[in-house]
Amino acid sequence: MATSLIGRQLALHLQKNLWLGAPGCRYVSKAAAKAEVEFDYDGPSMKTTVPGPRSQALTKQLGDIQNVGAVNFFCNYEESRGNYLVDVDGNRMLDVYTQISSIPIGYNHPALLKLMTNPNNLSTFVNRPALGILPPENFPDKLTESLLSIAPSGMSRVQTMACGSCSNENAYKAMFIWYRNKERGQSGPSAEDISSCMVNQGPGCPDLSILSFTGAFHGRTLGCLATTHSKVIHKLDVPSFDWPIAPFPRLQYPLEEFSRENAQEEARCLEEVEDLIVKWRQKGKPVAGIVIEPIQAEGGDNHASADFFIRLRRIAAKHGCAFHVDEVQTGGGCTGKFWAHEHWGSDDPADIVSFSKKLLTGGYYHKEALQADKPYRIFNTWMGDPSKNLFLCEVLNVIRRENLLEEVARSGKALINGLYELQAQYPGLLSRARGQGTFCAIDVRDDATRDKILVKTRDKGVILGGCGDRSIRFRPALVFKEYHVHLFLNIFNDVLTQFK
Amino acid sequence: MATSLIGRQLALHLQKNLWLGAPGCRYVSKAAAKAEVEFDYDGPSMKTTVPGPRSQALTKQLGDIQNVGAVNFFCNYEESRGNYLVDVDGNRMLDVYTQISSIPIGYNHPALLKLMTNPNNLSTFVNRPALGILPPENFPDKLTESLLSIAPSGMSRVQTMACGSCSNENAYKAMFIWYRNKERGQSGPSAEDISSCMVNQGPGCPDLSILSFTGAFHGRTLGCLATTHSKVIHKLDVPSFDWPIAPFPRLQYPLEEFSRENAQEEARCLEEVEDLIVKWRQKGKPVAGIVIEPIQAEGGDNHASADFFIRLRRIAAKHGCAFHVDEVQTGGGCTGKFWAHEHWGSDDPADIVSFSKKLLTGGYYHKEALQADKPYRIFNTWMGDPSKNLFLCEVLNVIRRENLLEEVARSGKALINGLYELQAQYPGLLSRARGQGTFCAIDVRDDATRDKILVKTRDKGVILGGCGDRSIRFRPALVFKEYHVHLFLNIFNDVLTQFK
Repeated sequence: MATSLIGRQLALHLQKNLWLGAPGCRYVSKAAAKAEVEFDYDGPSMKTTVPGPRSQALTKQLGDIQNVGAVNFFCNYEESRGNYLVDVDGNRMLDVYTQISSIPIGYNHPALLKLMTNPNNLSTFVNRPALGILPPENFPDKLTESLLSIAPSGMSRVQTMACGSCSNENAYKAMFIWYRNKERGQSGPSAEDISSCMVNQGPGCPDLSILSFTGAFHGRTLGCLATTHSKVIHKLDVPSFDWPIAPFPRLQYPLEEFSRENAQEEARCLEEVEDLIVKWRQKGKPVAGIVIEPIQAEGGDNHASADFFIRLRRIAAKHGCAFHVDEVQTGGGCTGKFWAHEHWGSDDPADIVSFSKKLLTGGYYHKEALQADKPYRIFNTWMGDPSKNLFLCEVLNVIRRENLLEEVARSGKALINGLYELQAQYPGLLSRARGQGTFCAIDVRDDATRDKILVKTRDKGVILGGCGDRSIRFRPALVFKEYHVHLFLNIFNDVLTQFK
Repeated sequence: MATSLIGRQLALHLQKNLWLGAPGCRYVSKAAAKAEVEFDYDGPSMKTTVPGPRSQALTKQLGDIQNVGAVNFFCNYEESRGNYLVDVDGNRMLDVYTQISSIPIGYNHPALLKLMTNPNNLSTFVNRPALGILPPENFPDKLTESLLSIAPSGMSRVQTMACGSCSNENAYKAMFIWYRNKERGQSGPSAEDISSCMVNQGPGCPDLSILSFTGAFHGRTLGCLATTHSKVIHKLDVPSFDWPIAPFPRLQYPLEEFSRENAQEEARCLEEVEDLIVKWRQKGKPVAGIVIEPIQAEGGDNHASADFFIRLRRIAAKHGCAFHVDEVQTGGGCTGKFWAHEHWGSDDPADIVSFSKKLLTGGYYHKEALQADKPYRIFNTWMGDPSKNLFLCEVLNVIRRENLLEEVARSGKALINGLYELQAQYPGLLSRARGQGTFCAIDVRDDATRDKILVKTRDKGVILGGCGDRSIRFRPALVFKEYHVHLFLNIFNDVLTQFK
């Protein structure tokens, strides 16, 4: 019902837009926008193509200091508001990419600005502590109020870290330590363990492995990178570990139309996982842990069923491997639940869940057993940043107060239905619309066309991101309302007509 | 001359203290303290042993969430000022460890607090950008004003990162990429490079290595950890790379008294470096880069001569290896120059210099040639944090305005001379006093005694850190004046008398 209603709404918007014709004319209700996201603008406003002249000059300036090949444009963060990112040439764009999915509640949210003006918070910003040895007084309370209040099922322990890569690196270390302690039983490390580890050799530095999946992305530091398999540019020329790589299911969409085929594909992948675990054990490189994203993001927004993940978790347990769910991109509410793994409906989803991006601090939750047995095994100078915990507390307050997860579920429905309609309308151009909440994607016929669409959409005032070979990913903030969905679809349709 | 003068001063303080006798009586001039560091307290003030009851209760609370084995005590950062860290039990301690050497200009420096109240800065804190794709307008200027204004000789390019480990991980990647591009010449990666790298295999993921040194510490993520060899607890149970490890010179102190012996030791180590480079090339794991700390910190404050580093850099160049100087702990002014490598007096000290801690942001400088050839090769979501650059600009202003490097040189002389006197006074207890600026250390007869001294000194109101097997390291902030040195030596002497 909701589907057809939203479908009709969308059709109306598209119709209206086609009818209005002239670029710049949009289905925009200022009143509605202001009511829904108070601190938002009422629509995109473009003054130049992007990057404009000021962005180009700054890119040239920065080019003397860094490689600027990835710079899109320069931003005026002071003027950005809610769902709108303003650039240095005065262009105001609807942001459906949000700094690679890392802005939870939009730009310059009043709640976050207010936090900054509270004198009680100042010292948290100017005195960054070494959290592992000298935590601030409010640290346990702030962890309880923020990260523990959203802890995955079965987990009451959390370790903060500075970024996503450090989170995964340390989660892997926790799994290795857990695995070796399990092997040792009551006895401590041997003299040989102790002497060999100092020179990078076994048994102290054991030949353990982490099983990952084709198309996975878990970061770019050397440990993480050994489990990342999304793009050549990430991996080329960097030494790696000989760790097993299982196929991630390559499903057909919409999932509900291909349930039989998809179940077969998932069964094939799970079988391969078990084979690899056995094979690597025989090779003398046992699998200490399995790492997986609930939805592969960077690798092309690849989904798998709840059943797949639950079976995979069982396989991990059966073979004595830890199960690590990497929610760096999927966590924080964008799928309509706080964690994507909640869609599996399991009370015991994982042994470790890592996060970063929208959580503003990196880190990982873990089950009691995965706690390193001694201090300084999982450690670094900063171990996170309490000022980010302050922001996270406030973000969670806003999410609860404004029922943002429900909003995401609602906007997500509008978005996926809009994408279904567009792919029906442009069958040679678009395919494989898919998503959960507003964490959606659609494929374009080839990468060159995808890239052109991204640029043209941006010039019309909407920022999107690519992923995989030829996908577009949608990563709006949690304050992206149905209104914004229709605004986006409207503009997107404008662009697509040029590629028909 | 200065030495004997300071020696006399110290003797006077010690005498005065011994004479006053009662604990808590110190050689403290309130007027002097206030004049020198305006926002400082005038001395330690202890109410309980440390950790006190409130710290113990909070440690218990945090223990339900994390491993708290490394927690010293909980801090009241609001009340901390300048060189003094205040804990939650109202104890005020002179901080000669500064959060593992990461607080540049003391706690709650007025210049940093002021920065927080400037409304123009708010949006930098609440909108953390993906710096690699959407930098803020002031990013090139802020980099120029902060990091580039202190760039090592011969380097005009800098890449920010979130922490020290990420900085080194990415510096290693930059060296690997540079090395392979050098091997390839004009031709791009082969089809085999491209296909093999996606599955962690050579030639795409090549068997390249980084040469590091015994006793080195470069971080704890998997790439960094393969070059870290300071303590078993860091390395045990974590898979590693078969990379070469050369001996770091084990010098005798004071350096000037053992110049002949030390030169021999350094020559032996350099010879070993060349042998290892050749050996690993023959093994099919060529050395792409050499990484070294100007003073090994975590590994026990091990020094080497300027001549050693200059020769090592030449050996690197001769064999086509990049030379990476890790200044994460030594950088930021604590040696009396902004970078410890400046003491070498070389115009071309390195190809890469990494930093973090006192710089408040992680990152690395590099020569033009070490710039990755394509975007997204050195990349992650955040790539640092512009709010930390804001703080760094202000820290640098304070360092310049208050001539803090000169102050460090002055305090450092007082500190090392005081340590020389103490080791003369307690010959069975203390040895090997060494240092550059205030970056000093001294050895204790055994680790158990060292640990007891650290605890007893803390209970008398001075925070120190350990390093290596049985060293004490001194890591005060740059606002640690001669006055604080004498205050510290005074208290330290009080403690040492108990161990005579």
